[in-house]
Amino acid sequence: MGEGRASDEPLELALYARDAGVAVGRADAVCFPGSGAEIAAAVRVARRHGRPFVARGSGTGLAGGSTPLGDPVVIVTTQMNRVLEVDAEACVAWVEPGVLNLDLSREVAPLGLHYAPDPSSQQACTIGGNVGTNAGGPHCLSEGVTSAHILAVDVVLPDGTEARLGSLAPDAPGYDLRGCFVGSEGTMGIATRIAVRLTPDPPCVATMLCAFDSVEAAAATVSGVIAAGVLPAALEMMDARITEAVEDFVGAGYPRDAQAVLLAEVDGLAGGVAAQVDAISSVARANGATLVRVAADDAERALLWKGRKSAFGAIARIAPDYYLHDAVVPRTKLVDVLRRVYEIADAHQLIVMNVFHAGDGNLHPLLVFDRREPGIWERVYAAGTEILDACIDAGGVLTGEHGVGIEKRDLMARMFSVDDLDAQARLRDAFDPDGAANPQKVLPRGSRCGELQRVPEGTWI
Amino acid sequence: MGEGRASDEPLELALYARDAGVAVGRADAVCFPGSGAEIAAAVRVARRHGRPFVARGSGTGLAGGSTPLGDPVVIVTTQMNRVLEVDAEACVAWVEPGVLNLDLSREVAPLGLHYAPDPSSQQACTIGGNVGTNAGGPHCLSEGVTSAHILAVDVVLPDGTEARLGSLAPDAPGYDLRGCFVGSEGTMGIATRIAVRLTPDPPCVATMLCAFDSVEAAAATVSGVIAAGVLPAALEMMDARITEAVEDFVGAGYPRDAQAVLLAEVDGLAGGVAAQVDAISSVARANGATLVRVAADDAERALLWKGRKSAFGAIARIAPDYYLHDAVVPRTKLVDVLRRVYEIADAHQLIVMNVFHAGDGNLHPLLVFDRREPGIWERVYAAGTEILDACIDAGGVLTGEHGVGIEKRDLMARMFSVDDLDAQARLRDAFDPDGAANPQKVLPRGSRCGELQRVPEGTWI
Repeated sequence: MGEGRASDEPLELALYARDAGVAVGRADAVCFPGSGAEIAAAVRVARRHGRPFVARGSGTGLAGGSTPLGDPVVIVTTQMNRVLEVDAEACVAWVEPGVLNLDLSREVAPLGLHYAPDPSSQQACTIGGNVGTNAGGPHCLSEGVTSAHILAVDVVLPDGTEARLGSLAPDAPGYDLRGCFVGSEGTMGIATRIAVRLTPDPPCVATMLCAFDSVEAAAATVSGVIAAGVLPAALEMMDARITEAVEDFVGAGYPRDAQAVLLAEVDGLAGGVAAQVDAISSVARANGATLVRVAADDAERALLWKGRKSAFGAIARIAPDYYLHDAVVPRTKLVDVLRRVYEIADAHQLIVMNVFHAGDGNLHPLLVFDRREPGIWERVYAAGTEILDACIDAGGVLTGEHGVGIEKRDLMARMFSVDDLDAQARLRDAFDPDGAANPQKVLPRGSRCGELQRVPEGTWI
Repeated sequence: MGEGRASDEPLELALYARDAGVAVGRADAVCFPGSGAEIAAAVRVARRHGRPFVARGSGTGLAGGSTPLGDPVVIVTTQMNRVLEVDAEACVAWVEPGVLNLDLSREVAPLGLHYAPDPSSQQACTIGGNVGTNAGGPHCLSEGVTSAHILAVDVVLPDGTEARLGSLAPDAPGYDLRGCFVGSEGTMGIATRIAVRLTPDPPCVATMLCAFDSVEAAAATVSGVIAAGVLPAALEMMDARITEAVEDFVGAGYPRDAQAVLLAEVDGLAGGVAAQVDAISSVARANGATLVRVAADDAERALLWKGRKSAFGAIARIAPDYYLHDAVVPRTKLVDVLRRVYEIADAHQLIVMNVFHAGDGNLHPLLVFDRREPGIWERVYAAGTEILDACIDAGGVLTGEHGVGIEKRDLMARMFSVDDLDAQARLRDAFDPDGAANPQKVLPRGSRCGELQRVPEGTWI
C-alpha cells in the first residue's frame, strides 16, 4: 500500500472509533486503500497478523455498523471515489465503493439518468455504505431499496480471496449471493467495485403537499392512495412538531397549523402524472385534507423536498441531541403504532417527532434531548427499546434501512427464533469462520445452536 | 407419514424419474407428504437411511431440476395444495408449496388481488416450484420475478432442522437467506409454507398488438418504449413462424404476414393507461409498425393472451418434439443475438421459433424436430449450446427463469470463474455439507477450489 495510506496515530484512530451512532469502539490501525488490489492487500495483511477488519465509507451510519470492535484494522474506502464506467444504453455504471450517492446521480445527470435510492444522507454517504446497509430513501417506495439497484459486486471475501457476486444481466443463475452481500453490513467482506443500475429520469414529475388535522387522517390517506391503484414515487409523512421545526429552519412552505403533512411525488408520462395527481387529491380530500397543493414549478418542488431532507438538521434548534430510530411496520398498523410511540415518549417525559417513509411503513421516531441532563440516556434507551418492541409486536421489523450494527444486535432474538438465527450464522461461518469481518456485529452471541455452551465466555464471533 | 403416502412401486418410480425436460434419473422411493411435519419427517428418514432427497412440485420444469439423481427419495408436494391464510388488507397469503400458481390467483380474485408472476405453465406449475426456480412470466417486466413476491419461507433444511427465512414485513435485517432460497432449485431444502405478496388488480388495463415487417423494427420498438419512460406491465415478442403456428392453432387474430408481432399490456389509472397507449403507438409507428391495435374489450384481450400462452402447444402441429431454451441478453443486444440464433439453427438445418419476454431480454428460442430422425439429438444439442454461448458472449446469462438443474450445470463455468463458483459452493456446503438436497444439480463438479483433487472420481456433490 502506498505511502501515507495507513496510520496508527492516536488522533486518526480516535476519528475512526465510531460512526454517526452512539457506540464507540477502538481501531488498531486505519488505512485508506486506493484500489481493489490495495483493499485485498489490507485484508490479507490484517489476517496475517491475526487482526479482524472493518470496512468504512463516510461513517454516516447510525447503528454502529462501522464502529471498530475487537481491535480491527479499519479499511476506509473514501479514497476510492471514481465512477469507473458508464453504459448509458444499458443503464449500468461500475463505481468504486467510496463514490458518494449524490455524486453518482450528478455525474450521470447529463445522460438523463440517476441512481434511484436516495437516503437523506445522500450528500455524504457512499455507495459502498449503501450496499452494506441495503439503504433506502424516499424514492425507494416505487423503485425498491438498494438491493434492487445493485447488479453485481466484486468483493474481497473475509479470507482475502476475491469473487464476483451477481451479474450485469438480470437474474443470474445459482444462489443469489449478491443479494446476501447487500445488507450484510461488512460481515461478508468488502466491495471493491460495484455495478449499479441507473434509472432513466421520468419525463414528467409532480410533487404534492397535503395537510391534515390528524395523524390518523394522513395515515388513512396513505392506505387509500395505494388502494386506489397509485404507487407514488415517494410518499413521506411529517408530524406537527417536525413540520414546525422544519418551517422555522428552512421555510419550506409547510402549513404550521397542520397535525400531519404528506409529501407525495408522482412521475411518468404527463397524462399518467395528471391522473395520479387527481387520484391522490381525491383520496386526501375524502380523508378531510385541509390543504392539497401541487408544486407549480421546479423551484417549489425543490423547496418542498428541502424541507423534508432538512428535518434532522432542523431539530438541532429544539435540543442539542437526538436519537433516531428506524423500524418498519405493516402500513395497515401505522396509526396504532404511531399512537403507541407518542405514549411511550410521554411516559418517559421525552419529546418525540416523526418524519418517515409512510408509503413503506418505515418509521423514524426521533427522540430529542440534552445529554447534559442527568439520567437522560437511560430514559432515551428505555423509550427506544419500547418503541422497537411495539413495532415488532405489530408485525414489523427492527430496522428498515439503517442496519443492525451493534445497536440492535441483541434485539435480533426478538424477531428471529434460535433456529432462524442459526441459519444466518451458517452463512456467516461459511464465509468467515474466524469472525474476522466486522466482528461482533449483526448476529447476537448465541446465534449458533449450542454456541453458548461451545464458545468460551468473552469470545465473540 | 400416513398410509399410502410413500411408494417404491416401479411404475410410480418411473413416473417420477424425470420432469418436463429431457434428463431421466432414477428415484429410490417417492412420497407425498400432507403437511410440513411430514416433509420434515421424510427428509429425516431419508437422511437416517443415507439417502439424498429431491423436492418436486408438478414436474413442469424444463431443466431437469427435479429429476432424481443419486438414488434419492422424491418428495412430492402436490398433496399440500391449500391456501392457508389470506390477509387482504396487508396483501399477504400463506400457502402450501403444492398450490398451483393460477389457483392462487383464482382464489384471491374476489378480493381484487392476484399473484403477479405468471409463467406460461401457470395452470400446472406450483408455487413451491416457482420458488425453486425463481420463475418469471410476462407480467414480471413491471412487477419483478418470483423473488420480489416471496416475503418469507418456512423451510426444512437439508439436515432436517426447520427455520423461517425472511419476514412478513419488508427488508428483514440480517442476511437475505430468503433471497438465496428462492432460485436455489431445491439445494437448500424444502419449503413447507410460503408467504406470498398479493398484488391489487389494476383499475384499468389495455392490451395492444403491434405488427412489424422485421424483427429489428419490433426490437427497436421495445427499446424505444422503455426509453420513452413507459414500463409496460408486459412486452412480449413473437416471430413470423410462431405467429403463424399460433394463428393456425387458436386463431388469436394475429396478422399472418408480419415478420414479428409485439404484445404490450399497460395498466394503472385510466388516464395513465391512455397516456401509455399513446406513447407505445407513437414509438411503434415511428419504427414502421404495419398494425397497431388496442383490444376493444376483455374478450379480445383474453384472445390476444391466449395466442401467446398457447405458443408451445401450437408448435406440436409443426413437429412432434421441441427443445425450448431460456437465456437472458441485455435488451440492447436483442437484434444481434436473434440474428445469430437464426444463423445457428440454419447451420444445423433446424427450425427455430422465437417467442419471448422482449422487455426483459429473456429469449426462448424453440428448436422443433422429430426425435425419430437419426442424429437429430446431436444437432439439437449442438445448436442449443451454440445459442447459449452466443447469449453469454453478448453479456447475457444462461437461464432466465427455467433454472440450471442438470441441463445447464456444466455450462455454469462459462459464466462464472472458479472463484465465483467457489463462493457459491461455500453457501451450499454451509447448509448441506453432505450434498443430500437435490444432489448433482446447479453447481458443476469442480466448483470448490481444489475439489477435483479432493473428491474421488465418480462422487458427486
